[in-house]
Amino acid sequence: MDNYLNEYRQLFQQIKSGEVNIEQALNQVRNLKFDDLGFAKVDHHRQIRNGYPEVIFSQGKTVEQIKAIVLKLAEKNNNIMATRATREVYEGICEVIEDAEYFEAARIVVVKKRNILVTEKTIAVVSAGTSDIPVAEEAAITAETLGNRVTRVYDVGVAGIHRLFANADTLMSANVLVVVAGMEGALASVVGGMVDKPVIAVPTSIGYGASFGGLSALLTMLNSCSSGISVVNIDNGFGAGYTASMINKL
Amino acid sequence: MDNYLNEYRQLFQQIKSGEVNIEQALNQVRNLKFDDLGFAKVDHHRQIRNGYPEVIFSQGKTVEQIKAIVLKLAEKNNNIMATRATREVYEGICEVIEDAEYFEAARIVVVKKRNILVTEKTIAVVSAGTSDIPVAEEAAITAETLGNRVTRVYDVGVAGIHRLFANADTLMSANVLVVVAGMEGALASVVGGMVDKPVIAVPTSIGYGASFGGLSALLTMLNSCSSGISVVNIDNGFGAGYTASMINKL
Amino acid sequence: MDNYLNEYRQLFQQIKSGEVNIEQALNQVRNLKFDDLGFAKVDHHRQIRNGYPEVIFSQGKTVEQIKAIVLKLAEKNNNIMATRATREVYEGICEVIEDAEYFEAARIVVVKKRNILVTEKTIAVVSAGTSDIPVAEEAAITAETLGNRVTRVYDVGVAGIHRLFANADTLMSANVLVVVAGMEGALASVVGGMVDKPVIAVPTSIGYGASFGGLSALLTMLNSCSSGISVVNIDNGFGAGYTASMINKL
Amino acid sequence: MDNYLNEYRQLFQQIKSGEVNIEQALNQVRNLKFDDLGFAKVDHHRQIRNGYPEVIFSQGKTVEQIKAIVLKLAEKNNNIMATRATREVYEGICEVIEDAEYFEAARIVVVKKRNILVTEKTIAVVSAGTSDIPVAEEAAITAETLGNRVTRVYDVGVAGIHRLFANADTLMSANVLVVVAGMEGALASVVGGMVDKPVIAVPTSIGYGASFGGLSALLTMLNSCSSGISVVNIDNGFGAGYTASMINKL
Amino acid sequence: MDNYLNEYRQLFQQIKSGEVNIEQALNQVRNLKFDDLGFAKVDHHRQIRNGYPEVIFSQGKTVEQIKAIVLKLAEKNNNIMATRATREVYEGICEVIEDAEYFEAARIVVVKKRNILVTEKTIAVVSAGTSDIPVAEEAAITAETLGNRVTRVYDVGVAGIHRLFANADTLMSANVLVVVAGMEGALASVVGGMVDKPVIAVPTSIGYGASFGGLSALLTMLNSCSSGISVVNIDNGFGAGYTASMINKL
Amino acid sequence: MDNYLNEYRQLFQQIKSGEVNIEQALNQVRNLKFDDLGFAKVDHHRQIRNGYPEVIFSQGKTVEQIKAIVLKLAEKNNNIMATRATREVYEGICEVIEDAEYFEAARIVVVKKRNILVTEKTIAVVSAGTSDIPVAEEAAITAETLGNRVTRVYDVGVAGIHRLFANADTLMSANVLVVVAGMEGALASVVGGMVDKPVIAVPTSIGYGASFGGLSALLTMLNSCSSGISVVNIDNGFGAGYTASMINKL
Amino acid sequence: MDNYLNEYRQLFQQIKSGEVNIEQALNQVRNLKFDDLGFAKVDHHRQIRNGYPEVIFSQGKTVEQIKAIVLKLAEKNNNIMATRATREVYEGICEVIEDAEYFEAARIVVVKKRNILVTEKTIAVVSAGTSDIPVAEEAAITAETLGNRVTRVYDVGVAGIHRLFANADTLMSANVLVVVAGMEGALASVVGGMVDKPVIAVPTSIGYGASFGGLSALLTMLNSCSSGISVVNIDNGFGAGYTASMINKL
Amino acid sequence: MDNYLNEYRQLFQQIKSGEVNIEQALNQVRNLKFDDLGFAKVDHHRQIRNGYPEVIFSQGKTVEQIKAIVLKLAEKNNNIMATRATREVYEGICEVIEDAEYFEAARIVVVKKRNILVTEKTIAVVSAGTSDIPVAEEAAITAETLGNRVTRVYDVGVAGIHRLFANADTLMSANVLVVVAGMEGALASVVGGMVDKPVIAVPTSIGYGASFGGLSALLTMLNSCSSGISVVNIDNGFGAGYTASMINKL
Repeated sequence: MDNYLNEYRQLFQQIKSGEVNIEQALNQVRNLKFDDLGFAKVDHHRQIRNGYPEVIFSQGKTVEQIKAIVLKLAEKNNNIMATRATREVYEGICEVIEDAEYFEAARIVVVKKRNILVTEKTIAVVSAGTSDIPVAEEAAITAETLGNRVTRVYDVGVAGIHRLFANADTLMSANVLVVVAGMEGALASVVGGMVDKPVIAVPTSIGYGASFGGLSALLTMLNSCSSGISVVNIDNGFGAGYTASMINKL
Repeated sequence: MDNYLNEYRQLFQQIKSGEVNIEQALNQVRNLKFDDLGFAKVDHHRQIRNGYPEVIFSQGKTVEQIKAIVLKLAEKNNNIMATRATREVYEGICEVIEDAEYFEAARIVVVKKRNILVTEKTIAVVSAGTSDIPVAEEAAITAETLGNRVTRVYDVGVAGIHRLFANADTLMSANVLVVVAGMEGALASVVGGMVDKPVIAVPTSIGYGASFGGLSALLTMLNSCSSGISVVNIDNGFGAGYTASMINKL
Repeated sequence: MDNYLNEYRQLFQQIKSGEVNIEQALNQVRNLKFDDLGFAKVDHHRQIRNGYPEVIFSQGKTVEQIKAIVLKLAEKNNNIMATRATREVYEGICEVIEDAEYFEAARIVVVKKRNILVTEKTIAVVSAGTSDIPVAEEAAITAETLGNRVTRVYDVGVAGIHRLFANADTLMSANVLVVVAGMEGALASVVGGMVDKPVIAVPTSIGYGASFGGLSALLTMLNSCSSGISVVNIDNGFGAGYTASMINKL
Repeated sequence: MDNYLNEYRQLFQQIKSGEVNIEQALNQVRNLKFDDLGFAKVDHHRQIRNGYPEVIFSQGKTVEQIKAIVLKLAEKNNNIMATRATREVYEGICEVIEDAEYFEAARIVVVKKRNILVTEKTIAVVSAGTSDIPVAEEAAITAETLGNRVTRVYDVGVAGIHRLFANADTLMSANVLVVVAGMEGALASVVGGMVDKPVIAVPTSIGYGASFGGLSALLTMLNSCSSGISVVNIDNGFGAGYTASMINKL
Repeated sequence: MDNYLNEYRQLFQQIKSGEVNIEQALNQVRNLKFDDLGFAKVDHHRQIRNGYPEVIFSQGKTVEQIKAIVLKLAEKNNNIMATRATREVYEGICEVIEDAEYFEAARIVVVKKRNILVTEKTIAVVSAGTSDIPVAEEAAITAETLGNRVTRVYDVGVAGIHRLFANADTLMSANVLVVVAGMEGALASVVGGMVDKPVIAVPTSIGYGASFGGLSALLTMLNSCSSGISVVNIDNGFGAGYTASMINKL
Repeated sequence: MDNYLNEYRQLFQQIKSGEVNIEQALNQVRNLKFDDLGFAKVDHHRQIRNGYPEVIFSQGKTVEQIKAIVLKLAEKNNNIMATRATREVYEGICEVIEDAEYFEAARIVVVKKRNILVTEKTIAVVSAGTSDIPVAEEAAITAETLGNRVTRVYDVGVAGIHRLFANADTLMSANVLVVVAGMEGALASVVGGMVDKPVIAVPTSIGYGASFGGLSALLTMLNSCSSGISVVNIDNGFGAGYTASMINKL
Repeated sequence: MDNYLNEYRQLFQQIKSGEVNIEQALNQVRNLKFDDLGFAKVDHHRQIRNGYPEVIFSQGKTVEQIKAIVLKLAEKNNNIMATRATREVYEGICEVIEDAEYFEAARIVVVKKRNILVTEKTIAVVSAGTSDIPVAEEAAITAETLGNRVTRVYDVGVAGIHRLFANADTLMSANVLVVVAGMEGALASVVGGMVDKPVIAVPTSIGYGASFGGLSALLTMLNSCSSGISVVNIDNGFGAGYTASMINKL
Repeated sequence: MDNYLNEYRQLFQQIKSGEVNIEQALNQVRNLKFDDLGFAKVDHHRQIRNGYPEVIFSQGKTVEQIKAIVLKLAEKNNNIMATRATREVYEGICEVIEDAEYFEAARIVVVKKRNILVTEKTIAVVSAGTSDIPVAEEAAITAETLGNRVTRVYDVGVAGIHRLFANADTLMSANVLVVVAGMEGALASVVGGMVDKPVIAVPTSIGYGASFGGLSALLTMLNSCSSGISVVNIDNGFGAGYTASMINKL
């Protein structure tokens, strides 16, 4: 909160010196009060210097709206990540900016303007079925774009638990794990019982009948009897990747 | 349906011989038509000869009502099983009949009047946590009372999956499996992925928060990605034991 | 678990004879430990020798993905079954392999490379309404492809219960029963009250208004007061056919 | 609406004759307008002459409150029925009025001051399990107190469908049927398929696990594929008896 | 059940006379037992003589399937009613049979081969909003086709309750009422408070947001504090019309 | 209620003078009784004089139906507002009337025939995300068309709470606030904690996964620990704008 | 926000005059920044001068905790209101302070230290059944304690709608209305259709069966087709009274 | 996995040396295979050396059972933590072991046998209302017992958001945050918008009406629009404290 106090310090010196009068100072305070609360997320400067991307949630926005946002963000010469991006979104972005890369499985467009330091420690992204891969990739690409080393362990659902165990070393050497599963979502509990690292569980809407759009997997994960598991919203690969990155970088 | 047709055959012979007239025969048919449909479950004779018990569901009945039912059933000199029986129910039964045995963990009273042939093949009853044991025991005692060899594998929840695997031989040598689990209910999927025998999954109401009285485990089990799993109602240990016995005796 | 121990036995003999040194042995153990746990389902050899099919769940996969999987499985010269297959999936499979057969009502493609021994005992597949037939056929074709004799009893909903009773002999002579019903799903309870064989109940999403996509039938079946009924997921004809087959072959 | 118009007619005559002046008449109209809308249920006179009871819903009222209401109603010398009445309520009523009768199973107190003509046609009250009897009796006693001939067919759940069919004649000779069932509630559909008379279905909260306090039976009944079935609230025996009486007396 | 007993009487006379031997008789009994249970709905003869239609539920059937059913039913020269029929269904029916009439708002096709006696007493069909009219018309046309006099009172939702009261005479002179309402479904309670005749309430799926596809109106109607109301499934205009007709014809 | 009584007063004078006889008067009363209850909303005259619009809820109506309604309303020369109007609806309205204006974001068509006095006090319409703007605009345009001064504070979700506080003066100077938010809907609580004016909270169906079509935001708002918040239906911008206007004009 | 700026103004003058140095000023700012954001609710001074009470939500607090809070609040000599207060709470409060008054039906304790100006305009509190009175009284006493004139219209449920209309004048002369109803909750819609003033609807948990603890009434009220209705949480009489007071005092 | 391989290494050397024969070795492997899978959590040795406690979940266990478990764990001279412990549990533990400490608000008993190194970095436990404190304390005491520095920020719900901001420095200097809130649960989103550290959100069952036992807060937290938030089960303070500790110690 130094910056914030610095602004006040400067103002006080100006008051003391008579450079600004009291009414002028009060006007400044009204703005300072609310505009510069100094909360972490308001201070983008540090993040930008480190190559953190600006994020656009594409779903529910038109291609034209996204192009406009990209153009505006590009002025800062910062990295940009557009999630839930269709191919049309990607092609629209290509019209206004160079060097956009499309991760189709993850439905993410990345525009890389600065390099970002990559962590030594890895995030493991684990998924149960092949249908869960889009959500898993959304988590993985998000974490990579935020500067994390990521290992993928896909198609290791509990119905064939030997495949999961064949990857035990990989799981146990990760620093943080993202576990993505639909249907009954039991994979999170099993992985949580194997490792002693934080597990971010992502229920997916994959399933049919009484999976109720991911509710089944969501409840399974919330009720896990394994410790160290916390859960994000159904299909929220981005949130899982972001949270895992935040933890991995502590 | 032989018995049923025999009654008609006898009637027809009586008509032919003039022993009964047609109006008398029609009266008999009205009764025969509905009373002796000949469905399997109506024919208790075979079951009784084999030592199958009569079952009383105690919940929602007064001790006096249960005592009356037991007295009436005892006339047939058949085995009796009372489920969801409190200690008070057991003590009430003891007042009217000898040789009642109380399985407290299972909440079942058994009155054994005839021996029942025990199967060679085993039913494995598997449970996740210690709190699931009452439901597991209800299934196990039910199956044993119906004449099955039962092996119990308790406290092998997926949070410590090595304990489950330490019992792999037992699981894999069972003919039918009953898997009892509350909270997230993932155990059924994992067991279903280990064996190629039918698994009867029993969700329990054990859990808290978003387990919603067993709904979480129920949905998990219904959505299992392992094949060969079918599900009974929440806490329905009796139903699972009965179904497993039916399958084991095929 | 003989095979599994045999691999260790062979390894130990090689250690003893000095054929492999201890470090080499430890590397092998790492793999043996997880790759060859010896669980039943890992051992496909026995199943394949008996003509059991490999199963592809087509829903959520592209035709190209399915064609690739079929081609890979075909190398083993094993039977193949693709469920939830549209006509497009069938035509795609025909492009890469001969002898594919399409069961349109069941939405199943079967490629038969080996004969499978058919059971003496029958599975009865019973359905309530004509709209339930796709799910019923999925169960029936699944069971037949797995080598079971199947009898179909369709359109016998409880609203016209005499039609059900006209088929009582068929129901009562089955070894296992699959009961498929949407709307209120009462058929499972009535059938369960008629027979003393295991009943696999399949709720369907057929219905409108407060059927809530099959929830109504699902709850009905879970709460059945008839014994010997267990339930699979909504519309899960495959799961019911597979479970019934597993039971029928015990 | 004759009475209602009569009051206006009388008023108009008084205006015409000058007996009341226009301002007095306007004041009367304000009251007439809302107090004497002439709707059927406001006109208790006809009902009272016919012996229809006044109804007190006891649940949520104190014994003192109920005693006060009974005393007030007793002034009209009308029949009184208190539903959901505990034994304490009954004893309280006995303190303030003679001739109260307590139907314990139905939890109803009846005070009979006038005779009520009993219908020729019967209402059949049918129930699935013994635990459903309180709700069934609430319906039966309600219908009887309202002057209907009632036949009871209890403990005929679909798990033993031959018992239901043994009563087919009784069911088919009823003019209206009330079907009371908990757990899976399938009885309403089966009865609805046997008769061509209106069926009032009452789900009960009897059951456990996924019966969710009667929700399972409620959904079953709403989704019934049998025609002629309509449904009242869970455990609402009074509502069913009242509606059946209304239909039976048309 | 006279017909049914007549068949037995005839059989017995043939046994007595030696016309059929006992084994032949037993074969006949097997069929009689289940085919001719004598339940009301099996005996279509009376209904057909009175002009009652056969009903086809079109939803989920192809036009070709419906045409085939119509052709088969037409052989009996009976009235036919197809519900949930699109214009395509109507045009398909016109290709195979003459004189089909299409009630577009009700989505019902009627083929009238015989006249049906129309009741003196009326059924009032009352609806809340203009969007509820398709369901209301389904009820009204169903009741008319079954031979009832029907009066329609539409667009009288409780938000403008004076419109409802302007029709009070019509409501109060009906013998049975069908009340159709979506959104909050309060109309059923208000009408139920005005009349002392049976009210069949039909929740519709009309609404948005927290109406949850008709759940809101369904719960409102089930919980109505007015007596004499029973409820059918969401959007089930046919069921309401059928039940109302059954009651109206008692 | 003066008008209403005036009609009676006039009638009484006519009775007194003999201008109408008593039977004629009774006929008039039947109509007066229900047609002119004198409730506030029946009396459109005052509203119309003040420029209040007639409202058409377009959803579920055809363009032709809407055109007909507009034409009929236009006869009264009153303002008209059509909500949930697509561009097709707007174009249809333009065919039958001049001067229709389309607020595309709000999906509202306004036809202004009379001026409406605008309030001094303002309604603040606050929204969380850009996707919530259609619902927010529906509220804002509704309130403006009803004659309120409206200030918009958009895109101030709690994830970046400094943006909300930057608008604190605007929020605190409003007389009534409408807060529109999807996803977790926390904005209503935060705003409710900042101001001491009534807050109308509108949950939107914006969100994914476990937002369940707006249920999450709805529950959040209902459970708000801030006082002075009341809630309308999911996506019900019109209802919020209308209620806010009603409050603002007290 | 004048007070807030005044504190800064005073600080700036002290800086200018040298009375405080810059570091001292920065320390003060840290506190000012967050402690005195100047939001309306932080400024209790105006409210206290006007007799507004401090509110204690008693539920979930021990009597000792409540006594301690009362003692602390009493120091300010302000009015105090404790909601959801049992008689034990009241007696506990009496031990530490004089002049506490207990409104038993409303479960509210009021300690009045200052007079509060009472509004000219009235709030009408309307309730459907006698069981809803506790919630209605909570709303009424809350509104009265906050200085509003309140009229009560109780026991006017829609099942006997003439009682509601007999109070039409009272309803129509209120400035704001609180409508309290359980079971089907239809009363809010009917009242909302009669008046053109804001209606705060309060669903109650009164009911049984499918009322699901107030969910039925809640959904009814949210889906109301009457305009001008907004809804608070189930049983939240306090919230309704508070919101109504806020609106009534605009 | 070193330990695990060491056991195999030792075995292989014994085989090589002839110390064990091959059959003996195979027997050992059967055990090694499943008992010593080498998964992290099986290896308690490291944890125990670091002072990590063994955890007993007391809920659903009798005091006698807990005493027995404590006695057995005490043999290892390890720290012990019993969660959801009533005062009776605490007193029972005191009977069998010395030095047990009871954290009443947290419902946790701690038996400290070894010291545990405390982290430099802090976990902030933030709670909305005073009723949420038991869950918050469960999280805080869990984290402290696992060796974390914990700061508590209680009673900072969003209804009085200035209290939250007054603690902004504390929140922003934490390494991990646990946010505990019932009712609408909005606090997690607001805190998540203020910090850029991982937030573990814990919904509590505090609330009434439509909070549905914590469902409202759960959905709010899952749908949070702030990034970096993950969620544990309702009231799961232990899980949150454990997960936060796991993250804090990375």
